[in-house]
Amino acid sequence: MMKEITLQELNPTQFIREKVEEIKNIVGNGIAINALSGGVDSSVVTMLGHKALGKQLRTVFIENGLMRNGEAAQVTGLFQKLGVKVEVIDARQEFFEALKGITNPEEKREAITQTFYRHVFGRIVRESGAKFLLQGTILTDVDETVAGIKRQHNVFEQLGIDPQKTFGYRIIEPLIQLRKDGVRKVGKALGLPAELFERIPFPGPALSARVIGEVTPERIETVRQATVVVERVLKGSGAFQYLAILHEDRVTGMREGKRDFGQQIEIRCWESTDARTATPTRLTFVTLEQLAREIINAVPGVVSVTYNIASKPPSTIEAV
Amino acid sequence: MMKEITLQELNPTQFIREKVEEIKNIVGNGIAINALSGGVDSSVVTMLGHKALGKQLRTVFIENGLMRNGEAAQVTGLFQKLGVKVEVIDARQEFFEALKGITNPEEKREAITQTFYRHVFGRIVRESGAKFLLQGTILTDVDETVAGIKRQHNVFEQLGIDPQKTFGYRIIEPLIQLRKDGVRKVGKALGLPAELFERIPFPGPALSARVIGEVTPERIETVRQATVVVERVLKGSGAFQYLAILHEDRVTGMREGKRDFGQQIEIRCWESTDARTATPTRLTFVTLEQLAREIINAVPGVVSVTYNIASKPPSTIEAV
Repeated sequence: MMKEITLQELNPTQFIREKVEEIKNIVGNGIAINALSGGVDSSVVTMLGHKALGKQLRTVFIENGLMRNGEAAQVTGLFQKLGVKVEVIDARQEFFEALKGITNPEEKREAITQTFYRHVFGRIVRESGAKFLLQGTILTDVDETVAGIKRQHNVFEQLGIDPQKTFGYRIIEPLIQLRKDGVRKVGKALGLPAELFERIPFPGPALSARVIGEVTPERIETVRQATVVVERVLKGSGAFQYLAILHEDRVTGMREGKRDFGQQIEIRCWESTDARTATPTRLTFVTLEQLAREIINAVPGVVSVTYNIASKPPSTIEAV
Repeated sequence: MMKEITLQELNPTQFIREKVEEIKNIVGNGIAINALSGGVDSSVVTMLGHKALGKQLRTVFIENGLMRNGEAAQVTGLFQKLGVKVEVIDARQEFFEALKGITNPEEKREAITQTFYRHVFGRIVRESGAKFLLQGTILTDVDETVAGIKRQHNVFEQLGIDPQKTFGYRIIEPLIQLRKDGVRKVGKALGLPAELFERIPFPGPALSARVIGEVTPERIETVRQATVVVERVLKGSGAFQYLAILHEDRVTGMREGKRDFGQQIEIRCWESTDARTATPTRLTFVTLEQLAREIINAVPGVVSVTYNIASKPPSTIEAV
């Protein structure tokens, strides 16, 4: 396993210089490619790759239908301002078809991984002729996969699967020695705007990690609308991460005096420095009640809202 | 519909005298029977019936397997001290058999109603020769049934179903003009011990109303253990009602660094005067975190705990 660079040890200017050099040396005059999700990790990797390779780097944003409200436009717009061209690939249909009928979380992750790598991104990479894949894997991803917590879509190498053989390209992972706090520090030093490098973590499987049960366009839209409320209300909370989860369980509710057997949204808001351990943020009840009220008003079919009060461990940050 | 007696209008001594007279007049020298659940309503009815009828009243406690920890022993013990003999009927097997495979909340309620009335209690009543059934129906039960919110097991009369025809006996409902606060006041005046008349409301379908999905002895045991923690920790909260709900949804968790796909408990704690509207109690995070920690430690398989932050309406007090 790679040696960790702690936040104390990290000199961001030196780190950037070394990584840019390293990427240049590996890629030479070849072509590299990377997928930008808009999260901190992939944004930092995009900027490192852009600094190292300029036009030798092709950056794609894969619209999988599982992203947050307006995310594709927001992310590509921000990078455009930084002089980085991002290509948007519409792959919504492929992802929803792959997810159809799947309720098991492991199978969901697997369907997304397979669709992303083998089908969508794999096809783009094969057609592009790029031999080098830049990825934003961080140390926490590796830890969790080795411990068997989750299947991260970006850790084939650490699992002993040879990406050279499997997909025909080489993976470059410049952030593999950092944790989330270190990545943020590098992001700041790279001059990324606050709205990007301060973004709260967002998981690889995107909103599908926040739907318990089958992932359909309708159910994604429900959790997407709840996410809009949660992110707006908790933006100033200073919390490490906050999210909305759509439950599969139905609960009894009532509207206008009539029975309304409805849906439930769970809110999680975490205090953490590195995602390895986390505790629920002690939000005020004024905020909690505002969240519940606004979600019930804004999201059709939702009659109940809960707030997570368990810590990680034994909970995890995401529910799926 | 019966005219409401508000808390302000209620003179408990006069109310008791009138109801005792009324019950005596109706029953004459016949035999009456009632089912005591240990809740406020049925406890008050038991005492009114006992005052009116003495040995002409037969009081049974039906152990349906869905009650809280140690409930049968606790309730019968308390009434024994008051000179009221309560007969315990073990009907656990009949209830669990009736609930097998049912996940729909309406069907669950219906299975419990049918098992209770037609099979267990109906059989006891028919075999006892009693012609009079004392019931603890309160005004809120009637309201909610008329509005179609829930199927209360004790409102056949209000729904226009003639219990005379259906079950062959007459229902006497001395509390029908009161709401929960009025019943408590009458309970105090009847000399019921604090632990009884101050008990938090507990629904007719008991713990089965707190299990989303199929009701099995194992799942009831899980929510029962969580209920022990919730009732102990929130005993002094002064809240109107507090409860634990077992979700059917599974969420990702981890124990000892290993993945543990586990169960979730939802806690609800309500501020309310009459159960018609309610808001979540603004518990401290010290209490919320204690609840989560103790439930996770005490209840096998639970990895996640949430707290309800929605109000009624559109939520309801119970989840099923």
